[in-house]
Amino acid sequence: MSRQSLVTVEEIKKHNSPDDCWIVVDGKVWDITDFAPEHPGGGQIIWKHAGRDATTSYSEIHAPSLLPSTLGPSKLKGTVDTQTITDEWQKPPPKATSELQLHEKPPLHSLINAQDFEDVAERTITKKTWAFYSSASTDCITRDKNREYFSKLWFRPRLLRSVGKVSTKTTMLGHDIGVPFFVSPAAMAKMIHPEGEKDIARGCVDVRVPQCVSNNASFPIHEIVPAVPKEKQHPFFFQLYVNREREKSEALLRHVAAQDVDTIFVTVDGPVQGKREEDERVKVEDGLTTPMSGQSTKNDRRGGGIGRIMGNYIDPNFTWDDFAWARKHWRGKIVVKGIQCWQDAKKCADLGMEGVLLSNHGGRNLDTSPPAIIILLECQRNCPEIFSKLEIFVDGGIRRGGDILKCLCLGATAVGMGRPFLYAVNYGEEGVQHFIDIVKQELEIAMALVGITDLSQCDAKYVNTAELDPIIAVGEEHPYASGKRLRGQGRERARL
Amino acid sequence: MSRQSLVTVEEIKKHNSPDDCWIVVDGKVWDITDFAPEHPGGGQIIWKHAGRDATTSYSEIHAPSLLPSTLGPSKLKGTVDTQTITDEWQKPPPKATSELQLHEKPPLHSLINAQDFEDVAERTITKKTWAFYSSASTDCITRDKNREYFSKLWFRPRLLRSVGKVSTKTTMLGHDIGVPFFVSPAAMAKMIHPEGEKDIARGCVDVRVPQCVSNNASFPIHEIVPAVPKEKQHPFFFQLYVNREREKSEALLRHVAAQDVDTIFVTVDGPVQGKREEDERVKVEDGLTTPMSGQSTKNDRRGGGIGRIMGNYIDPNFTWDDFAWARKHWRGKIVVKGIQCWQDAKKCADLGMEGVLLSNHGGRNLDTSPPAIIILLECQRNCPEIFSKLEIFVDGGIRRGGDILKCLCLGATAVGMGRPFLYAVNYGEEGVQHFIDIVKQELEIAMALVGITDLSQCDAKYVNTAELDPIIAVGEEHPYASGKRLRGQGRERARL
Amino acid sequence: MSRQSLVTVEEIKKHNSPDDCWIVVDGKVWDITDFAPEHPGGGQIIWKHAGRDATTSYSEIHAPSLLPSTLGPSKLKGTVDTQTITDEWQKPPPKATSELQLHEKPPLHSLINAQDFEDVAERTITKKTWAFYSSASTDCITRDKNREYFSKLWFRPRLLRSVGKVSTKTTMLGHDIGVPFFVSPAAMAKMIHPEGEKDIARGCVDVRVPQCVSNNASFPIHEIVPAVPKEKQHPFFFQLYVNREREKSEALLRHVAAQDVDTIFVTVDGPVQGKREEDERVKVEDGLTTPMSGQSTKNDRRGGGIGRIMGNYIDPNFTWDDFAWARKHWRGKIVVKGIQCWQDAKKCADLGMEGVLLSNHGGRNLDTSPPAIIILLECQRNCPEIFSKLEIFVDGGIRRGGDILKCLCLGATAVGMGRPFLYAVNYGEEGVQHFIDIVKQELEIAMALVGITDLSQCDAKYVNTAELDPIIAVGEEHPYASGKRLRGQGRERARL
Amino acid sequence: MSRQSLVTVEEIKKHNSPDDCWIVVDGKVWDITDFAPEHPGGGQIIWKHAGRDATTSYSEIHAPSLLPSTLGPSKLKGTVDTQTITDEWQKPPPKATSELQLHEKPPLHSLINAQDFEDVAERTITKKTWAFYSSASTDCITRDKNREYFSKLWFRPRLLRSVGKVSTKTTMLGHDIGVPFFVSPAAMAKMIHPEGEKDIARGCVDVRVPQCVSNNASFPIHEIVPAVPKEKQHPFFFQLYVNREREKSEALLRHVAAQDVDTIFVTVDGPVQGKREEDERVKVEDGLTTPMSGQSTKNDRRGGGIGRIMGNYIDPNFTWDDFAWARKHWRGKIVVKGIQCWQDAKKCADLGMEGVLLSNHGGRNLDTSPPAIIILLECQRNCPEIFSKLEIFVDGGIRRGGDILKCLCLGATAVGMGRPFLYAVNYGEEGVQHFIDIVKQELEIAMALVGITDLSQCDAKYVNTAELDPIIAVGEEHPYASGKRLRGQGRERARL
Repeated sequence: MSRQSLVTVEEIKKHNSPDDCWIVVDGKVWDITDFAPEHPGGGQIIWKHAGRDATTSYSEIHAPSLLPSTLGPSKLKGTVDTQTITDEWQKPPPKATSELQLHEKPPLHSLINAQDFEDVAERTITKKTWAFYSSASTDCITRDKNREYFSKLWFRPRLLRSVGKVSTKTTMLGHDIGVPFFVSPAAMAKMIHPEGEKDIARGCVDVRVPQCVSNNASFPIHEIVPAVPKEKQHPFFFQLYVNREREKSEALLRHVAAQDVDTIFVTVDGPVQGKREEDERVKVEDGLTTPMSGQSTKNDRRGGGIGRIMGNYIDPNFTWDDFAWARKHWRGKIVVKGIQCWQDAKKCADLGMEGVLLSNHGGRNLDTSPPAIIILLECQRNCPEIFSKLEIFVDGGIRRGGDILKCLCLGATAVGMGRPFLYAVNYGEEGVQHFIDIVKQELEIAMALVGITDLSQCDAKYVNTAELDPIIAVGEEHPYASGKRLRGQGRERARL
Repeated sequence: MSRQSLVTVEEIKKHNSPDDCWIVVDGKVWDITDFAPEHPGGGQIIWKHAGRDATTSYSEIHAPSLLPSTLGPSKLKGTVDTQTITDEWQKPPPKATSELQLHEKPPLHSLINAQDFEDVAERTITKKTWAFYSSASTDCITRDKNREYFSKLWFRPRLLRSVGKVSTKTTMLGHDIGVPFFVSPAAMAKMIHPEGEKDIARGCVDVRVPQCVSNNASFPIHEIVPAVPKEKQHPFFFQLYVNREREKSEALLRHVAAQDVDTIFVTVDGPVQGKREEDERVKVEDGLTTPMSGQSTKNDRRGGGIGRIMGNYIDPNFTWDDFAWARKHWRGKIVVKGIQCWQDAKKCADLGMEGVLLSNHGGRNLDTSPPAIIILLECQRNCPEIFSKLEIFVDGGIRRGGDILKCLCLGATAVGMGRPFLYAVNYGEEGVQHFIDIVKQELEIAMALVGITDLSQCDAKYVNTAELDPIIAVGEEHPYASGKRLRGQGRERARL
Repeated sequence: MSRQSLVTVEEIKKHNSPDDCWIVVDGKVWDITDFAPEHPGGGQIIWKHAGRDATTSYSEIHAPSLLPSTLGPSKLKGTVDTQTITDEWQKPPPKATSELQLHEKPPLHSLINAQDFEDVAERTITKKTWAFYSSASTDCITRDKNREYFSKLWFRPRLLRSVGKVSTKTTMLGHDIGVPFFVSPAAMAKMIHPEGEKDIARGCVDVRVPQCVSNNASFPIHEIVPAVPKEKQHPFFFQLYVNREREKSEALLRHVAAQDVDTIFVTVDGPVQGKREEDERVKVEDGLTTPMSGQSTKNDRRGGGIGRIMGNYIDPNFTWDDFAWARKHWRGKIVVKGIQCWQDAKKCADLGMEGVLLSNHGGRNLDTSPPAIIILLECQRNCPEIFSKLEIFVDGGIRRGGDILKCLCLGATAVGMGRPFLYAVNYGEEGVQHFIDIVKQELEIAMALVGITDLSQCDAKYVNTAELDPIIAVGEEHPYASGKRLRGQGRERARL
Repeated sequence: MSRQSLVTVEEIKKHNSPDDCWIVVDGKVWDITDFAPEHPGGGQIIWKHAGRDATTSYSEIHAPSLLPSTLGPSKLKGTVDTQTITDEWQKPPPKATSELQLHEKPPLHSLINAQDFEDVAERTITKKTWAFYSSASTDCITRDKNREYFSKLWFRPRLLRSVGKVSTKTTMLGHDIGVPFFVSPAAMAKMIHPEGEKDIARGCVDVRVPQCVSNNASFPIHEIVPAVPKEKQHPFFFQLYVNREREKSEALLRHVAAQDVDTIFVTVDGPVQGKREEDERVKVEDGLTTPMSGQSTKNDRRGGGIGRIMGNYIDPNFTWDDFAWARKHWRGKIVVKGIQCWQDAKKCADLGMEGVLLSNHGGRNLDTSPPAIIILLECQRNCPEIFSKLEIFVDGGIRRGGDILKCLCLGATAVGMGRPFLYAVNYGEEGVQHFIDIVKQELEIAMALVGITDLSQCDAKYVNTAELDPIIAVGEEHPYASGKRLRGQGRERARL
């Protein structure tokens, strides 16, 4: 076929696959099969036009001279026989998306960050489930600040380092893990997907994302752990609310240990349940005070909601001393979950705990309790020695790979995410996998751009904390402590 | 009846009460009468399904294996006879709420916080009343900051303490009270409810919430006090505006004392009335300058409104020296209401007053006067000794139990709420009770979650004041004082 | 007429004026003529119901027992003869307002603050005039911060002082004035009202508000000054832009002096015109580049607008040395208008100027130039001695009596308002009077509530400047000055 | 023609051009031909009314007495013959603009600032192009702060200097340039205009705005450089991404040098591509994962977009050491582009680079990396000596002449703008010229108003940096660095 010869559209349309790919540009027919895989812009953007006229797309981006000089004359198959052009052939390639119905989930691949998962959940799950998952205490100030404060930490990137290969692997509580984040315990995953916590487990196994199973999980621990092949030795942890009836907790711990779980997270920030108003409103609307029940009492005015009624069994009198009881009934590691000031974190270290999870329970318990990043900085300022004594975790408001990197640079071993995994399992196991891929890649990009290739290189020098420093508590005693007033401490006396 | 036997829907429907409660899950019929009261999620959520198919609700939350293992085989009554299922039986249980008309009040139990009461009031009361209650001075900056500043105080929770029993009881001006808050004087409660201040009194008596009756109350004090049984010895206070005609105030004080009131709050922040524009606009619209009156003068341009016209009798020349007069005509305790800087608070202590109410009058008098929490911190910084000399109260912008706890941790004895009680009495006595319950429970939750069980444990160390500290005035003289300039005081010289 | 006798509605309706005023409450007819003027709530609120049934209004506010005990039995005229009640009589009293058309001005008495005047102007004047008056430079950051920064200054009220009589009188540049504010020069008042600057003068004369006439006024100075009776000796000042052709300015100064004006404000912040984009957009829309003109050049791209084209004659090369020229041609006082840093303010004092107006030209010239309150604080920090050498004025963003009080407490002699007077003269002379009344009364209220009765008592101690202090420039040299870096100055080195 | 004679409208309409211009005011006919060019408000505003009745426009602004006194009686042509007035003659002059269609570009002269160009681009270009140009990394915090932080720098104008003549000329990397800004490299200008980078070059040549051509330009460098006449010696720079296959970069550098380009900008902040979500969403919508391609892999979940697929060839392992390679293959000057902390800037100076471009890539790579102005201040605080060793440039968020002046005052030699030039070339060469004119004039105004006439007078003392100072990193080591804690450094220890 001569380079000048006319080529019919019929002929061109046959070469419409990556293995045999012709395109037309400015009336010339080119065989681009060999070049396409090397295209700086990727092969797909070319294959999309296989067997078609690509003039419009091409000339939006490239100069006319580029194509001949890149491909050389041997790839020119001729000139389009304009007589043979049909309307159908000239149409642009089909697009993938169409208008979604309100409650319809968009295709998974179109979700590209944690917020997308949350937005889809809000639109597609029941009002009751959304209220239970998304709600937080009273005015939701803590919940919102959890996220906002990450945007007040600035990176300080170092460039011109060899960052072609980046690893997100690390260890947590003795387990090798693929990324420095884990599933923070969150209750009732079945409300969003019938396979709930089991599909979370399945989605986590490939990348080795540890899962901390909630005491209030929809499935018992002995059904969740087996969801993953035993040979994977997947790291599971168990979150414990200590029961008012201590023997029930003891039985539960025996049962958990029997599942080869070696670490418990003891939640200590919920001796009473916070007031989650969105959740409580659902109860009111849901008619839980209908005459039928005959139980309307003064107490009912206070509302309920799934959160509140779930916590009745939690012992509000569990104290520091009771860790002796815990150690007696649990031979594995213990992480204290919900610590909210440096003094308590230090106490955990002094008591020989294996870890501490700085957390305000996603803002669900006490409103205006501090975001975990604030507590982490408090610890750095007041008791930096504990970072070498136990592992320090944080959760609350983490949505981006960059958030994770900031926490690690400031001393955290790993971070937890709770709600985001619930919103991910809206798409089942595959949704969890996709979500993990997204966050992992965000983290990789952030590491490379900040100038590190391995998490061991994390260092506070990569983060500028100046916007938050003024609100970090320093020192032991508060100047306003009842009846006394400290003197001569300069600016810092104003803070605890 | 054998466990395998078929059970008709007719039969199932008979067991539809808490005393005799069957439910169906996955086609099995269970007698759940004994278990329901022990359900971790509360009995109501089960009773709602009594005599019905609860499969959907159950499986949203629980694994299938849970029910048999929890109840045991003895509770299985058989299998539903699917032939007998009717459409009616399969319908979900009825919901309680329906669409409300614009000016209709929603049922009281559906209100779950102070803001709800305010929102309902705005929608249901007259425009004039709303303008009078809600308005504040000029640009309302102080009114809005009153609330906003509470969200700039962060808690510093201490965990792992025994908080199973929390008490909100304390004392105020010699009275035992049930909660550390009182009804701040607010005028004209009758505008929102025909029983006005009398129903506020009735709603306060159970929990022992002291009521400070406004000088401009809709009812005379001798009608309000008797609204409550004498044997309750309910704490009433009286708020006094000193009259230009001093003898009228003297007569009033004698009358008040005759009602067994032992404390007056002398308001000193309103020598002239603030400019409450929303209130004034109502007057304009209300036609008070119609030709009929024949009184339109230049002065009328300045507007009026209920607030302004109510204050004509207040003496703008009442000064510190006049407390001698007050002591002469009042044998009880005196609290000075409306103090707005530490120097004046200290002066009250030096003069031997029994208490001081730090207050900007709900932002209704001088715009950009400081929120009470700022004045409280000023006192802590400049004259901490006064906290042991008199009782210090604050009001303005307090809407949450957490707000109250912060004030007490920073040294207040109790806090006042004005507008919230007006919005609560929109529902009469019961509304006031419900509102008190809500705030009391919020306070209890906050106390437990911050780690204290009694108000005597309140301490500044539970609050991080760092966001507000930079704007707290320190020292006696201002560096910009006319003609002189202080030197060598570092950062603090820039503040008063 | 016996107290028990029936009174017909016909009879009642006759007593419908302040001089003879009966009202009906709960079916009883009362003669309230004597009491009404003494009513704590003002007489008008009663007269409105003269000859009518006032039960509804009365019982909204008062207890039933109040009326008999206040008036005594002699004022009871009898009981309404219910047989005689007509529908018409029972209607509520008429309201004054009705719906306004979009471009219709509401009645003057319904405007109660400066913002109201601005809102009415925006709605009722031509687009071109609004653009010219309201526009500011580029992104309008300075214009908006001018207002916002006043809300960052907090009052520190002192109470319990005798504030029954408050005076706003003071002096400015040797003139007795009624309030500490003046009309800042603003061009082209005729665009909003045919009598423009003349009506501003007429409106200012009663309260003695000085008027600084703009060099670009719509009327020549010799037409404005005579608008006010000569015997009033009303204080007029003249604002001068120095002309490129100096002899024109000299002639103008001679002409101004001939009008008995004794002070000029020399504007120095406009050597070139700022870029006021709203104003420029109007020109574009207005077709000034139509083919007809035949003058479209490259320059036209830059836009124009009234502001820009008005300033062509201003000399951009007028410097400090040229004040010698000014002194030669002007025997009166000279105020330098537009100073924007403490160094230049000090220079004015050193040169013996009589005053300085700290101003950023309403944000119309250089965007992100500092609000005048910032410059005022700079002067306090860096050269407090100048406050006793010349009079210091500020303008920009002042809208409230409280703003004025803050400026005076921080050292200003008086403040200027420009745009607000333009918006006020939208209603002619009476609008200006009403506007002055409003601001004067706001100032009186603020003075009384802050605890002073005379402007000589103004003091920096009544203002908490802590929110602005961190951005006040301190010292002479900047640490970043080209090539050098200052050391050892602690925190302050970061600022100029 | 006597002054009192009647003039017909027929006659008046003949004098309707600048050369022969009559207007009517208040019924009088004036010949204003001679005066119009001297009109303080410009001639155009008068010519618009040539041959017409200008009474309305005139009296909006001027007093009636002004016209006779200015023109003198000789210019009065008579009185309008009212009998001859027609409806058509009385109509106002035509306006230029009409309603625009959604995707229609408004006339170029109606665009008056950079934001206008951006707004037009958003409305008129393809969704794909808009996504590519406008998008930034993840949450776009850095992109938005790039702009916002300029509004936190306040000017400190000095007045009364002779600023009649202002020059924006300076030098950059040895070239004389007309303004202190250049075209920052931005890819694929052809997407918005078929002449893309070539028209940018043509638009830049008159004012001598240097153009730094992107490695990913739509046209090869050898087509862009010749777009401008060789004799202009226009300054072109070339931006280099170092290729994984180093010999390709070597060949490219040889090619670039052959075009008489003497400086390369080596981009070092993109070892991996940032996650630009808007861009990635377009790919998803565009159907790049349709079955046809058969290439959907797990990786595809991560999205793509033009940005990502363009960067595959960039070497992520290029390090400081590799500048030796660069020097070997490039004899000209080297500017390092993308530096983001003072330590790296100092390293560039130590290595003898000719320049450094402080940049976060328009916020497109790592979100929450610092705005360039922050890095510039860091350098001033930590290594001021480098300002005399190399030329320091900044880009990101610059949109106003005032922004440019701030950068130069704080030490920058010149600033880059990327996106704004793409949006300007939406109108081709003329759009670029117009945009440059706009920014240049904004800069001239800002210089004059701040008190300088030449860029060599730029000095840090003209800028108040106090709002940003607290977040500037100071010192070498961070107090939170892993495991250690620095002591005794006061407030500054909290920052890096």
